[in-house]
Amino acid sequence: MIPNILAERYASSEMRDIWSPAGKVRYERELWIAVLKGQKELGLSVSPGAIEAYERVIDQVDLESIRQREAASRHDVKARIEEFCALAGFEEIHRGMTSRDLTENVEQLQTARALDVVRKKTAATLARIAEKAEEFKAQVFPGRTHNVPAQPTTFGKRLAMYGEEMLHAANTLERVAATYPVRGIKGAVGTQLDLKTLFDNDKSKVDQLEASVVRHLGFSHSLQAVGQVYPRSLDHEVIASLVGIASGPSNLARSLRLMAGHETASEGFAPGQTGSSAMPHKMNSRSCERVNGFLVLLRGYEAMAAALAGDQWHEGDVSCSVVRRVALADSFFAIDGLFETFLTVLGQMEVYPAVIDRENAAYFPFLSSTTLLMEAVRTGAGREAAHKSIKKHAIDTVKELRTGAITTNNFAERLGEDSEFPLNQEEIQSVIDRAAELTGLAQEQVGDFSNAVKQYLSPLDPAWQEYRPGQIL
Amino acid sequence: MIPNILAERYASSEMRDIWSPAGKVRYERELWIAVLKGQKELGLSVSPGAIEAYERVIDQVDLESIRQREAASRHDVKARIEEFCALAGFEEIHRGMTSRDLTENVEQLQTARALDVVRKKTAATLARIAEKAEEFKAQVFPGRTHNVPAQPTTFGKRLAMYGEEMLHAANTLERVAATYPVRGIKGAVGTQLDLKTLFDNDKSKVDQLEASVVRHLGFSHSLQAVGQVYPRSLDHEVIASLVGIASGPSNLARSLRLMAGHETASEGFAPGQTGSSAMPHKMNSRSCERVNGFLVLLRGYEAMAAALAGDQWHEGDVSCSVVRRVALADSFFAIDGLFETFLTVLGQMEVYPAVIDRENAAYFPFLSSTTLLMEAVRTGAGREAAHKSIKKHAIDTVKELRTGAITTNNFAERLGEDSEFPLNQEEIQSVIDRAAELTGLAQEQVGDFSNAVKQYLSPLDPAWQEYRPGQIL
Amino acid sequence: MIPNILAERYASSEMRDIWSPAGKVRYERELWIAVLKGQKELGLSVSPGAIEAYERVIDQVDLESIRQREAASRHDVKARIEEFCALAGFEEIHRGMTSRDLTENVEQLQTARALDVVRKKTAATLARIAEKAEEFKAQVFPGRTHNVPAQPTTFGKRLAMYGEEMLHAANTLERVAATYPVRGIKGAVGTQLDLKTLFDNDKSKVDQLEASVVRHLGFSHSLQAVGQVYPRSLDHEVIASLVGIASGPSNLARSLRLMAGHETASEGFAPGQTGSSAMPHKMNSRSCERVNGFLVLLRGYEAMAAALAGDQWHEGDVSCSVVRRVALADSFFAIDGLFETFLTVLGQMEVYPAVIDRENAAYFPFLSSTTLLMEAVRTGAGREAAHKSIKKHAIDTVKELRTGAITTNNFAERLGEDSEFPLNQEEIQSVIDRAAELTGLAQEQVGDFSNAVKQYLSPLDPAWQEYRPGQIL
Amino acid sequence: MIPNILAERYASSEMRDIWSPAGKVRYERELWIAVLKGQKELGLSVSPGAIEAYERVIDQVDLESIRQREAASRHDVKARIEEFCALAGFEEIHRGMTSRDLTENVEQLQTARALDVVRKKTAATLARIAEKAEEFKAQVFPGRTHNVPAQPTTFGKRLAMYGEEMLHAANTLERVAATYPVRGIKGAVGTQLDLKTLFDNDKSKVDQLEASVVRHLGFSHSLQAVGQVYPRSLDHEVIASLVGIASGPSNLARSLRLMAGHETASEGFAPGQTGSSAMPHKMNSRSCERVNGFLVLLRGYEAMAAALAGDQWHEGDVSCSVVRRVALADSFFAIDGLFETFLTVLGQMEVYPAVIDRENAAYFPFLSSTTLLMEAVRTGAGREAAHKSIKKHAIDTVKELRTGAITTNNFAERLGEDSEFPLNQEEIQSVIDRAAELTGLAQEQVGDFSNAVKQYLSPLDPAWQEYRPGQIL
Repeated sequence: MIPNILAERYASSEMRDIWSPAGKVRYERELWIAVLKGQKELGLSVSPGAIEAYERVIDQVDLESIRQREAASRHDVKARIEEFCALAGFEEIHRGMTSRDLTENVEQLQTARALDVVRKKTAATLARIAEKAEEFKAQVFPGRTHNVPAQPTTFGKRLAMYGEEMLHAANTLERVAATYPVRGIKGAVGTQLDLKTLFDNDKSKVDQLEASVVRHLGFSHSLQAVGQVYPRSLDHEVIASLVGIASGPSNLARSLRLMAGHETASEGFAPGQTGSSAMPHKMNSRSCERVNGFLVLLRGYEAMAAALAGDQWHEGDVSCSVVRRVALADSFFAIDGLFETFLTVLGQMEVYPAVIDRENAAYFPFLSSTTLLMEAVRTGAGREAAHKSIKKHAIDTVKELRTGAITTNNFAERLGEDSEFPLNQEEIQSVIDRAAELTGLAQEQVGDFSNAVKQYLSPLDPAWQEYRPGQIL
Repeated sequence: MIPNILAERYASSEMRDIWSPAGKVRYERELWIAVLKGQKELGLSVSPGAIEAYERVIDQVDLESIRQREAASRHDVKARIEEFCALAGFEEIHRGMTSRDLTENVEQLQTARALDVVRKKTAATLARIAEKAEEFKAQVFPGRTHNVPAQPTTFGKRLAMYGEEMLHAANTLERVAATYPVRGIKGAVGTQLDLKTLFDNDKSKVDQLEASVVRHLGFSHSLQAVGQVYPRSLDHEVIASLVGIASGPSNLARSLRLMAGHETASEGFAPGQTGSSAMPHKMNSRSCERVNGFLVLLRGYEAMAAALAGDQWHEGDVSCSVVRRVALADSFFAIDGLFETFLTVLGQMEVYPAVIDRENAAYFPFLSSTTLLMEAVRTGAGREAAHKSIKKHAIDTVKELRTGAITTNNFAERLGEDSEFPLNQEEIQSVIDRAAELTGLAQEQVGDFSNAVKQYLSPLDPAWQEYRPGQIL
Repeated sequence: MIPNILAERYASSEMRDIWSPAGKVRYERELWIAVLKGQKELGLSVSPGAIEAYERVIDQVDLESIRQREAASRHDVKARIEEFCALAGFEEIHRGMTSRDLTENVEQLQTARALDVVRKKTAATLARIAEKAEEFKAQVFPGRTHNVPAQPTTFGKRLAMYGEEMLHAANTLERVAATYPVRGIKGAVGTQLDLKTLFDNDKSKVDQLEASVVRHLGFSHSLQAVGQVYPRSLDHEVIASLVGIASGPSNLARSLRLMAGHETASEGFAPGQTGSSAMPHKMNSRSCERVNGFLVLLRGYEAMAAALAGDQWHEGDVSCSVVRRVALADSFFAIDGLFETFLTVLGQMEVYPAVIDRENAAYFPFLSSTTLLMEAVRTGAGREAAHKSIKKHAIDTVKELRTGAITTNNFAERLGEDSEFPLNQEEIQSVIDRAAELTGLAQEQVGDFSNAVKQYLSPLDPAWQEYRPGQIL
Repeated sequence: MIPNILAERYASSEMRDIWSPAGKVRYERELWIAVLKGQKELGLSVSPGAIEAYERVIDQVDLESIRQREAASRHDVKARIEEFCALAGFEEIHRGMTSRDLTENVEQLQTARALDVVRKKTAATLARIAEKAEEFKAQVFPGRTHNVPAQPTTFGKRLAMYGEEMLHAANTLERVAATYPVRGIKGAVGTQLDLKTLFDNDKSKVDQLEASVVRHLGFSHSLQAVGQVYPRSLDHEVIASLVGIASGPSNLARSLRLMAGHETASEGFAPGQTGSSAMPHKMNSRSCERVNGFLVLLRGYEAMAAALAGDQWHEGDVSCSVVRRVALADSFFAIDGLFETFLTVLGQMEVYPAVIDRENAAYFPFLSSTTLLMEAVRTGAGREAAHKSIKKHAIDTVKELRTGAITTNNFAERLGEDSEFPLNQEEIQSVIDRAAELTGLAQEQVGDFSNAVKQYLSPLDPAWQEYRPGQIL
């Protein structure tokens, strides 16, 4: 059999269980039993022992037997009804229901449970980012714009930057999960005709059954005026929220890939693992690259889901079927693989202070030029003359560094020797040395971020933030 | 000049104003003045009369003059600073700010104001759908799945179905707008270094200035740990919410296109307009087709925005610039054009009861077969025999209708003449006649939807739901 | 295990074999042996019996054993080398090669073989469309624009229209396949350093080995200046060509879905199958809907591939890995599923002439109005007066049909009774009856299309067009 | 008016002219005159002087007057017919034509002419890349995989790598342009009914007119069985080919952004321009970033076009209209902006050999380890012992470099002092010094690429490769 590569190679067993064929059969059986119980409570006749009989065989999932039934009947839901009834020895489930009353609700249930896994790992990821941001809040290095040094910042602040992005997406995710509506038992075209008939036109019983089903499935509310299918824009909203969640981690992973190129930081290695013996300097960012790859997949699945949104004909059909079979499950496998990978990266990430210091040494002289100008003016020197000196020596230094005339940045020395400039080399160097202090409110911002994460986590299950990833390939 | 076709041909002037080059210049000037005022209040020296001078010239926007300045300096923000200063006769704005402190915040301001327009038109659209759903809540016709008749429903219920989809998206939109964070004045790499220096390291003054700027821009909160650019996943979230909003209207428009093919309903014509004189039956669904087209555009812009999310390098760069210049403005022009078109459709939509009745007559006999079976069994007839009769005559009727042996559905007659079947033609016809009652809870669902819309609208500006579209091409 | 749903539920075994984990292992082994043979021929020492030993075990693929090796070494290619060597009892393969020399070429081989399957089924599909177009070339019915009747055409012409679209895409596909270049054995950064070293700097031997590998893989040429990875824009080109191929079939499927709503045609049923007994009129277009679904998937995979194109860093990395594992295989499974489904539809499609005749009867009166005008003028009547009469009666007829005042189109009768109009009802009806002749060159166009298909097929394997689909679910 | 930002800010006037509203009016008028001439030649009566009258006013394009006519008639094509006729004083154009006979063909003409511009600039770009690749064919530096040094290559080879990717796409583009079919004059549903009627059922005259129109438009062939609209998969094929063309340049631009971060190369500055005086080291890759941005746009437009492919209803409608108005023109503006930007980059790109040398010095010791091992074994030393020594010192060196214990790579010194290792420091250094020779066939590959470009260019207009970009913002 061809395996689902995302599920088998990257996702966790927790996520696989939700979307596995056998898992889906179990969800369906639970729904049938819930409906049956509800019907019994509302006065419909149910054979004695039937519910118990169904409950006893709920875990006896024989996919091959179901497959054979489907090959005979050419109807997938019918095959699964027959199998369950044959196992239980009763024929009482699925009364007043159509196929979509089963499949739509179960697929939404899978979506909701998968969202819970994503919520959990989001919480863990934010907790880990906040820890790392605090750990490196004072590690100064040149912030980069256009990929080149611009102003000093700290590594912790950079982490907080991407973390804050994820925090926003996490709040969106919480709202998507909280407001996600289930379709309910609505019949062939959504009018609840069959249940209404079953309950002799007693609307209140139809409503009660609906309420008990919604409760069973764990949702807070259901759609009222839905047709045969729930609106596919819901799928789009869910997958769009996954793209949002993936964005911050993808940015952080991309920055690590960039930093690995400079050897200032890396995604590290698993315990016991070492770089290639032939090329020990190689810090291949395989996991970070993979994180970026997962986001590409998520965007593609989002495009598929977006294509279904707004493309419904009348009360619905199955033109979306093959798309949803793929895009829903696979987008959750992708985000799950992303979490497993990214949490691993956060756990073993390394920072190389000595290399960072060399980068600081190389760039801080230039990053200090505006401060030097200010100090020169304080001594009474003319602003224009001082600026002219600084500019000349800065440009010359860069040029000679690039042509190889010099090999280390001697801007301070040059400027110090310039008699037109009022500060001597020592004074200049002392300004440059203070460049590391020019990180503005970076550290305070890290603190703000940590606090925001704490606030975010406080109403959530405390176990969530303790989640640790499994072993990745 | 090549015009922006979406802006000029489809969007409203209200939306155009937000994104026009001159409008953006005004927003920028307002921001500069707000910052300047804030700085003055916090003790920085500002020349007497400067603020007033800037305020006086805020509307003197000469794009050509700015263009010439940019051609000289090759720096767009610098050109706009110079122009504003030249007009005011002062050089006091933009102190402690970088280019992105200006442009990021102004683009977010444009986004937020454009979202407000979308919120308004969403409210109006939902109000119109609810009205129409109520108007046609009792108009029975065959609900369709797989594009073929399945069970009776009502036209109002179908409208409510798409309306409920939009209502969910509208609630999402409200939350997106309410939680959208602005970047604030954060400096070159986001550390607020320059403002901190300007205020002699007084963090509280930095915070106060930030708060006053956020207030001026009309946002509830700002990002704390942001870099040079705000996270591009915010753009994605915004455009994804527009795709969500467009989905329900697109579905309704698509159904109208399908119904126009059956002449059961149409998007109608503008007052005074008539169908082609040569082909008066032609109800070209031009506007509905256009609505579907706008959604295709929105999905494309969403894909562009998704591509930027998670693709940030370090503290940022301008690889997203050309993409955002296009995708942000154009996605808002597209959704705005969609609203103008769709509101027009809702205003002139027509339903053709006589054609619907013919469709009912053709399909209700088949849609009644389960009820016929039940009634037959009540008379004491055997279930299997009755089912056999029904099936035989139904299949024969369809076959002969398709081969032309008969031209109208005579299923009731055939079945009535069948001596194996216990009901006579009159009794059968009376069952079929009641098919129109088999709409389950469709009408109640319409009522539920209308109430939900009312609840949604209640906290919003009452003028919003009164919005009427402009004239469309 | 979670199965790949596209592979297992929709694709053919032929396509599954190409992308199966075991199949890939075999392709790799074939490549290793081909390289080893080439190296031996070019003078490198190879142990006696080694090649034969490897060849003997080529089909002994034990995925579980390989998995265990990978878990130990954490290197997938190394695990497969070890397994193959352990089976053969030699350690001679992979000399002068890096992992990507193996995997890139094998993935391109899979792509090329999968393209061949697509080429075959494209040929079969075009042959079937041409047959059907000929069969129905004279079946007149109202062509529709904006989903409403516009001018007469024939059903065969409509099929030819979508067929011609596919024919264009088929020619593109042939060129894509013919010009697709393989990477070849190029080493870690593409400089062929290791092979050059292996052959003591003898460039001609490097070239000869390359040529023999390209020949073995069945390609016409290889890339010259490639890096570690072949350009990902090649993947995009391949998948974009699949979107092109899917477009015509998707259009035809969509038209059938629309026609099923009018009962003028349907995708038919499998032999022995019948419509729902309760609702025998239901011609659910499940397969056509599925065809449209497959195209949505293909567009999504194209978006994923497009995201990789132009996103290479230096000589390459694995940020594309997870994306390509999914998008390449799954897009071929999707197109294959589309073919199996669509060929089934073409095989059992039904057309209902009696229903078409009723549609003709309803619309031809209006579609004849310009001819009626011309004939009236020929009798000497004034053009303006005649036009006025026609317009009045046409609009009245439509209005009354829609309000239910009349139930069949009596335009001819009305106009005939109008004393201002020179033709009587009989003359008018005779014009309307000739509307069926107003199909222009539709039939000739079908002939042109059939000929073009014949020309397209002539250089291809004659067995291809005889391909028939397997049984679909 | 809101300008089209892509057209006005980034595209060339040549591309703007093709898609300008006035330009389109001229194309339409040319088509009308061509049809009129063809009709006259085939015997239809045309008033004396009419053709000349139309030709005289062809350039009198008054968009405002046309707009007013459209506001009155609410029909865009009718408005343009009236305007042209009013200017000419005749009413003879558009005979036997429908609106789509005009607009489809003209839009295809715009597409074809825009493709010619792309073909020209592709030729110029390839010529420039080949020149640069030759210029830097011997500039050795560490090739990178996973963004870290892997094996030596040359800068010219890297350029050739991306150039070869573009060359493949260029060949695809040539074929797309050569095989692009035009719709022709086919009437309302594609049956050529009106022309057939006009020519009294003389098919040969219909064919002759078609041939003369195709010739006039500059196409090689037309579609035969088309409906009201040409297949939208053609638009997709065109835009997909633009994505292909953009991929190589985007990759090269991305590598330059990465190299700028290391100061090994940059996109350079415009003549006279210099880096920021405060931060002269800043080599902002603004133009390269922009190139990457254009590709994001192109992918989005491709997604829009893909959404239209396979979504045709019957013979066509205008649900694609707003999408194509945007996506066709804007994708050509985007690719044109990309060319203008990228050609500018190629013209001013800078390489910094001294910085590259420092990178070589840092990494070549590690990149030489396999050679060192080989040389050690040659002296008779044990392979395992030698490997152990190399590995130990390599790992120690890296570790100390990252912790700051050492600041320059002293691997050669360490290894030389290791008595277990048979080579002394001088011998080791001499091996490392030869690392620069380990570029395999990189230089020959550059030569192969240059030759392939020459071959590609030889059948094309020689002026094309001389194209130089305009001034960019």
